[in-house]
Amino acid sequence: MKKITKKVNAAILIIGNEILSGRTQDKNIAFISQWLNSKCGISVNEVRIIPDNEKRIKENILILSKKFNYVFTTGGIGPTHDDITAQSISKAFKVKYEYHKEAYAILEKYYGKKKFNDGRKKMAKLPRGSKLIYNPSSAAPGFIVKNVLSLPGVPSILNSMIENCKRYLIKGIKVHSKTINLLTVESKIAKKLGLIQKKYKKNVEIGSYPFFRLGRVGVSIVTRSASRLFLKKVNTELSRVISAEKIKIFKR
Amino acid sequence: MKKITKKVNAAILIIGNEILSGRTQDKNIAFISQWLNSKCGISVNEVRIIPDNEKRIKENILILSKKFNYVFTTGGIGPTHDDITAQSISKAFKVKYEYHKEAYAILEKYYGKKKFNDGRKKMAKLPRGSKLIYNPSSAAPGFIVKNVLSLPGVPSILNSMIENCKRYLIKGIKVHSKTINLLTVESKIAKKLGLIQKKYKKNVEIGSYPFFRLGRVGVSIVTRSASRLFLKKVNTELSRVISAEKIKIFKR
Repeated sequence: MKKITKKVNAAILIIGNEILSGRTQDKNIAFISQWLNSKCGISVNEVRIIPDNEKRIKENILILSKKFNYVFTTGGIGPTHDDITAQSISKAFKVKYEYHKEAYAILEKYYGKKKFNDGRKKMAKLPRGSKLIYNPSSAAPGFIVKNVLSLPGVPSILNSMIENCKRYLIKGIKVHSKTINLLTVESKIAKKLGLIQKKYKKNVEIGSYPFFRLGRVGVSIVTRSASRLFLKKVNTELSRVISAEKIKIFKR
Repeated sequence: MKKITKKVNAAILIIGNEILSGRTQDKNIAFISQWLNSKCGISVNEVRIIPDNEKRIKENILILSKKFNYVFTTGGIGPTHDDITAQSISKAFKVKYEYHKEAYAILEKYYGKKKFNDGRKKMAKLPRGSKLIYNPSSAAPGFIVKNVLSLPGVPSILNSMIENCKRYLIKGIKVHSKTINLLTVESKIAKKLGLIQKKYKKNVEIGSYPFFRLGRVGVSIVTRSASRLFLKKVNTELSRVISAEKIKIFKR
């Protein structure tokens, strides 16, 4: 993994009717996003969730792969009829959808020649030129073609594969963050917070998120920056506001 | 709520750095999507998650409001500097961003004249022509302008407001669904499932989702259709496959 000093971003494309319908609660977005930021210095800048539909997958792959450094897809790489991610990406990039020799060998070894049926063989069909993202849980590999990395939708399997994406990614600047939980309401600090954000708008991003926890009402102030120095400066100014307003800090 | 017999769809636009960064696990997508389908017969067809950025909000509001019958936004309608949903939607639709008389009156009454500070007043500033979505939890209303409905990001508040969206929505055809949990693996049923899907592709959508629960490996087969008759037909054919293959049904 080559280290560079610029910002690197990514989009996540969740492919799956079950997430759109609300039947399944997505868990992959937060996982991928946190992993990318903490391990690779890559910020997720957009997420889209779309149905298992070839036209929609093609459109979105083309748009997102142009707009962002990397696109991570989840879902649609299993053996059933609704798993159409690999063939749709092939069509988007106008490359052949064909058996990938190494993927075929991995799956044939995993299932054994006799049990290597058509559904299982389908998981070895990938866009031509794909490189594999190895799967230590259930063998069927993910793949990367151009700047698009395709992973399965089942969170436990995806989680076990994520480290194998690293070799294909360029490292960006890590964003550091600090959170302070305050026992106050947003509107009490909104004005001063706004002034601090204005002063540091080029270097620090300040977020304000109300919470309700253990019967207490509060606000989490999250500061994020690629520069530890600026992060410290902003947090010093925040501390001054907190003391001046006599706001209590919430400790869990 | 007027009843019509056509398909009505919606998009959800989640506005918030905290969801993109993975700091916060989104809970609104599944909730809104399930509510829309079960209560209004409206299918969510796309979800996007974007940062608290005016340009990005404007772009996405314009694209999604053209493409779908309704757009639901969550987040960015509080009192702090990073709450820019209302002003960004105003700019997208080229309407004034100004105090909404009723919203102003509601908030002034809720906080009391003395405590109605600038941050709180900001929550009464909406796109001109907005209608209110009342908030029984914390007073600050959501709003609808054109076909865009804006709700807060805090799930408990959003949940308490959702029923108040109903009056603004046209009802579509309800999609019925049936789930069977099988103790098998996808590749064992992939072929026959694909054939059934092919036969009923115009009327029924069949999804196949592997699960790992209580140490068991299985597949959930989800069938969805606006027609109860076709749903029944498909499930009869599925039952035949299940018996023929001697697959056990998983009961929780």
